Amino acid sequence: MPRVKKRRSDCPINFALEIFGDKWSLLVIRDLMFMGKTTYGEFLKGPEGIATNILANRLEKLETAELIVKAPDPDNGTRFVYSLTERGKDLIPVMLEIVSWSGKHDPKTPTPKAMLKQIATNRQAVISEIRKKLIST
Amino acid sequence: MPRVKKRRSDCPINFALEIFGDKWSLLVIRDLMFMGKTTYGEFLKGPEGIATNILANRLEKLETAELIVKAPDPDNGTRFVYSLTERGKDLIPVMLEIVSWSGKHDPKTPTPKAMLKQIATNRQAVISEIRKKLIST
Repeated sequence: MPRVKKRRSDCPINFALEIFGDKWSLLVIRDLMFMGKTTYGEFLKGPEGIATNILANRLEKLETAELIVKAPDPDNGTRFVYSLTERGKDLIPVMLEIVSWSGKHDPKTPTPKAMLKQIATNRQAVISEIRKKLIST
Repeated sequence: MPRVKKRRSDCPINFALEIFGDKWSLLVIRDLMFMGKTTYGEFLKGPEGIATNILANRLEKLETAELIVKAPDPDNGTRFVYSLTERGKDLIPVMLEIVSWSGKHDPKTPTPKAMLKQIATNRQAVISEIRKKLIST
């Protein structure tokens, strides 16, 4: 992975935070992982209202860190479609644990109880299912 | 949990990012969870070199979000000791998945292979072990 800045420490938590420790990067990962979104325009339309310059910056950063990759859109040569790399797909367990945590601690969580139970009791199956869907897209 | 700002969305990933989506919050959680650190001075001495104003801000934010709680230090009335709340301890699985991910994708990771294997194969036991240590401190 290319590195421009010296890392703050070798701690594994720090390694991750230097890549996606901000308010937006994991929302782009979420869109690719769970929402079936693949284009800049789709990411831009998320409910959190990401700004164009922040989105462009995060896409570039995630690409540099090799979590996502872009390719010309076969349907429209002027735009790109993004997808998760293996390194990006390996974040599925991290994302599911975050969903579980928020599902438990946010009284207003929209995550269905049945889904939270699935994650808790059939973790590996849920991970495989998400991986399978990502291959077929 | 007290909220001053309107949340950006109800998405569970967003819920978490609004609390700890930055480069520093999870380092404080790490210090409390894995390093046995409990005081401002100890957090300040981390290898990442957190600045005093950022540390003070993150401690306050994590306290407001009820991930950590502070109490007067019985050994020194002028300072506080911090500890993880239940909500904070419930981040153990998130933290372990991040450690696993970095352990796999950072060629320079200091995490011992044996530890990564433990997390992968004895997840629940590792979580219980960390919880047990946190109770006894």
